[in-house]
Amino acid sequence: MINKLVANIKKTNAPIVVGLDPMMKFIPEHIKAVAFAEFGETLEGAGEAIWQYNKAIVDAVYDLIPAVKPQIAMYEQFGIPGLVAFKRTVDYCKEKGLVVIGDIKRGDIGSTSEAYAVGHIGKVQVGSKKYRGFDEDFVTVNPYLGSDGVNPFINVGKEENTGIFVLVKTSNPSSGEFQDRLVDGKPLYEIVGEQVAAWGAEHMGDSYSYVGAVVGATYPEQGKILRKIMPKTYILVPGYGAQGGKGADLVHFFNEDGLGAIVNSSRGIIAAYQQEKYAKFGAEHFADASRAAVEDMIADINGALAAR
Amino acid sequence: MINKLVANIKKTNAPIVVGLDPMMKFIPEHIKAVAFAEFGETLEGAGEAIWQYNKAIVDAVYDLIPAVKPQIAMYEQFGIPGLVAFKRTVDYCKEKGLVVIGDIKRGDIGSTSEAYAVGHIGKVQVGSKKYRGFDEDFVTVNPYLGSDGVNPFINVGKEENTGIFVLVKTSNPSSGEFQDRLVDGKPLYEIVGEQVAAWGAEHMGDSYSYVGAVVGATYPEQGKILRKIMPKTYILVPGYGAQGGKGADLVHFFNEDGLGAIVNSSRGIIAAYQQEKYAKFGAEHFADASRAAVEDMIADINGALAAR
Repeated sequence: MINKLVANIKKTNAPIVVGLDPMMKFIPEHIKAVAFAEFGETLEGAGEAIWQYNKAIVDAVYDLIPAVKPQIAMYEQFGIPGLVAFKRTVDYCKEKGLVVIGDIKRGDIGSTSEAYAVGHIGKVQVGSKKYRGFDEDFVTVNPYLGSDGVNPFINVGKEENTGIFVLVKTSNPSSGEFQDRLVDGKPLYEIVGEQVAAWGAEHMGDSYSYVGAVVGATYPEQGKILRKIMPKTYILVPGYGAQGGKGADLVHFFNEDGLGAIVNSSRGIIAAYQQEKYAKFGAEHFADASRAAVEDMIADINGALAAR
Repeated sequence: MINKLVANIKKTNAPIVVGLDPMMKFIPEHIKAVAFAEFGETLEGAGEAIWQYNKAIVDAVYDLIPAVKPQIAMYEQFGIPGLVAFKRTVDYCKEKGLVVIGDIKRGDIGSTSEAYAVGHIGKVQVGSKKYRGFDEDFVTVNPYLGSDGVNPFINVGKEENTGIFVLVKTSNPSSGEFQDRLVDGKPLYEIVGEQVAAWGAEHMGDSYSYVGAVVGATYPEQGKILRKIMPKTYILVPGYGAQGGKGADLVHFFNEDGLGAIVNSSRGIIAAYQQEKYAKFGAEHFADASRAAVEDMIADINGALAAR
């Protein structure tokens, strides 16, 4: 799947990923009205509204982009009906040829991490049969528990040609609270980055590893350092747009070949119609606003890469 | 809920929690046969087998114990039907008066952590109504993202009288890979422990905080230090039994009042019938074997506490 991700990025010339993180306040009233009319103001109604909203956005942008990143928390908050909407979204995006990065930030130990891995990027055994519980191509993984927590994902990924993105330096203001602590003069995120490179060597694609890293757009200097520490690692970069990252900040996350990084935007794309810049589309044409925002984001990043 | 947890522990005189981590290989063949006869060897069949297995164990032990800790990964691996079994298990344990600690090890930032919090230990808004997606009393939380990731759980917990257990020093062999790194001569887990104590001061119950910590039974020396760093923090101690921890190793996780820690055992209880010690019960009476294993565990820990 890392080879497919690279191929999709080359084909679309768009090193971006659209974060499908549907919040109820992003979903236009007319979508909610139809869903609530059928299912009431219930968890099922919320799940239906999310699914219809996602589907319209995916239909509007799928030909422009290589990948999507649904954030499972935004679905899980609505319990089972929310997770049904997550699964429908993953399956639909895969039908459309998109690489799906499940932003699940799981991480446990041994057989427990293995259970998450088979459930999301592998197959689970039931008697004599095997099934995919969810069916992402990549998932995000938290490294705090060390190799015991990460290796089961790598092992399942090797069997299934699926992969992971490990949290290294997250985009939020307090990410430094633990991640920046100096260990023998070196911040913890660099030590984690070195380990990600080592894990990645165990599961390589053609030019990049199936073991990627998450490094926030809001920390461009750290991105520059981590780029060098992890040369074969694809970097998933959240924090563009709403969190403050700009195209010009992002060039050092990329390798010289223009590859090696994929930049995520969530509300900046899916709720574009709520921004002044795209207000002219109106709530009725929210998906067209998302398409325009995708085009602008691609131009911003490619412009910055061309200018470096 | 921390007050209810303490009350339940005093009432049962059992500072233990049963980990409901059903693996297919633990579930007796006769349970699986009935479930597969009804639903086939499908994800639904697996979910039904898990539910029937859990229900029998809970029915056999609920009067002896204060709390259960279902590990969501073991359900999530079976996709939606697995998560339906998780929800049924949580709801059933709450009906039985047990405190439910959802071992979900979630952790993200800002509105995303808030979504996990409302979904698991709070209520989510749908139009004019509010619902509980899942309905645990506590969940486990990963601290790698810092305060931005943890505070939303605390804030939701304050509204709902629910709480969290933050991973501090996990029970697995490689937990030291990052958690033991020395920051100015102090291991990272101590820094996290200090932060847990600070977070905990913001959301106190009568005698202990709603913000607990996870410290593995396999690291008794670290437990002793962390006990002092976090005097008002309930410590959830995994790693007893199957992972190698014994009652005598655990006394320093407790405060002088005999409170302050709750020790988890999963396969040691739920798959007791597969151990030589409890083989006499046979697979047919697996739940009675679990009850005997609970009684032995309580005696082991209380004996060690009495002898200190």
